[in-house]
Amino acid sequence: MRAVIRSGEWDGPTAALAPGYTQANLVVLPRADAFDFLRFCALNPRPCPVLEVCEPGSPEPVWTAPGADLRVDLPRYRIYRDGELADEVISVEWREDLVGFLLGCSFTFERALLAAGLPVRHIEQGVNVPMYRTNRDCHPAGRFAGPLVVSMRPMTPEQAIRATQITTRYPAVHGAPVHVGDAARLGIEDLARPDYGDPVEIRPGELPVFWACGVTPQAVAAASRPELMITHAPGHMFITDVPDARQATL
Amino acid sequence: MRAVIRSGEWDGPTAALAPGYTQANLVVLPRADAFDFLRFCALNPRPCPVLEVCEPGSPEPVWTAPGADLRVDLPRYRIYRDGELADEVISVEWREDLVGFLLGCSFTFERALLAAGLPVRHIEQGVNVPMYRTNRDCHPAGRFAGPLVVSMRPMTPEQAIRATQITTRYPAVHGAPVHVGDAARLGIEDLARPDYGDPVEIRPGELPVFWACGVTPQAVAAASRPELMITHAPGHMFITDVPDARQATL
Repeated sequence: MRAVIRSGEWDGPTAALAPGYTQANLVVLPRADAFDFLRFCALNPRPCPVLEVCEPGSPEPVWTAPGADLRVDLPRYRIYRDGELADEVISVEWREDLVGFLLGCSFTFERALLAAGLPVRHIEQGVNVPMYRTNRDCHPAGRFAGPLVVSMRPMTPEQAIRATQITTRYPAVHGAPVHVGDAARLGIEDLARPDYGDPVEIRPGELPVFWACGVTPQAVAAASRPELMITHAPGHMFITDVPDARQATL
Repeated sequence: MRAVIRSGEWDGPTAALAPGYTQANLVVLPRADAFDFLRFCALNPRPCPVLEVCEPGSPEPVWTAPGADLRVDLPRYRIYRDGELADEVISVEWREDLVGFLLGCSFTFERALLAAGLPVRHIEQGVNVPMYRTNRDCHPAGRFAGPLVVSMRPMTPEQAIRATQITTRYPAVHGAPVHVGDAARLGIEDLARPDYGDPVEIRPGELPVFWACGVTPQAVAAASRPELMITHAPGHMFITDVPDARQATL
């Protein structure tokens, strides 16, 4: 699938592609910002689970996808200059001082939820997962600071309990929920108006279940206005060689 | 207990002190080496679980022990220059370019093992845990490269199963064992001659059970010969404010 993407034959979302293989969020930053960003990830492992950090200057993630090339192997990229979205492209150049970070993505635990017969509403409805900025601050590191962003999936209380058990197995991809039930406790005013993604239906008897979200590091990095930042375009992830099952710690 | 240590009244090992609070390994490196060292930890989370990375220049771990001072709050330190042990002291100076790392320590999961009635032989025998260099290379990061170091605790197969379940709950402090039973598979020639620590008795019917060990990052860092590195002296750990129970993910 990476070869197909590299050839330019596919530049769409990666959601159902290469099932069973871990997909990753991409963040690329100049070396000057890389240490504080990695400190930020280390201090906030729930929203920022680090799968790999490339050697500075190298676009090859040698441990999660040897031979891959982060300049061309994602279907779509976003380029931010001084924190502002400047361009959306299908390949990028790699300066000598750039450092590539691959961070865990909720696709991994959503597959586990679906396999257990649990609902993943935004997939049912064919939209993007709803995401919300919360009133909880991440631990800051240097210039990198900002609120925790969460994703939300509606479930019955029984389903929420089972989903807690299942996602607990995956601490490397956000782990267990951070909250269930009361959006106001997270400072979320209106579930129908997410800060990122699309709203989804919450049915009678369902609670909103919230997980730490991989958008957090991107939002925080953009807000810190690095001179240059490259990310994947939303939903257009990097496909690694690592089986999803390997992310489970039990 | 940190106040007692700071006052100089106690400069001995911390093993049974402040029970229930997470103790940490300390590594301090110059800013120039800090990014690659943190990358090394991120790529090797089993031996190198990061509890906190301080702001460069600051000896205060603001998240795990606000108000503490890493210059004086450990009972004993080792100072390495160009990778060679140069001194052992009870307080250290902190240059503006130094970065302090706190890494998880096996004391946390050993307490959980003891609470479950499982044997921790080196504690029974009153010696240091036996540790061995293995034939498994860590993922390198820049100049930081070297073998995985493991600690060993002898158990019956039934005890090893229970210990696997219990330590699985603690991915932030080394997690489940990396091997059980056959030391030769790890390249260990003689269990009676550990590379670090002391040998312990293995009784009839017991297997050696091996966990990734926090000595790994120290051994790797020393081998890379940084201009300056400060660590805790073996067994003389930093006591955080974080309850051990908080390290459990389930």
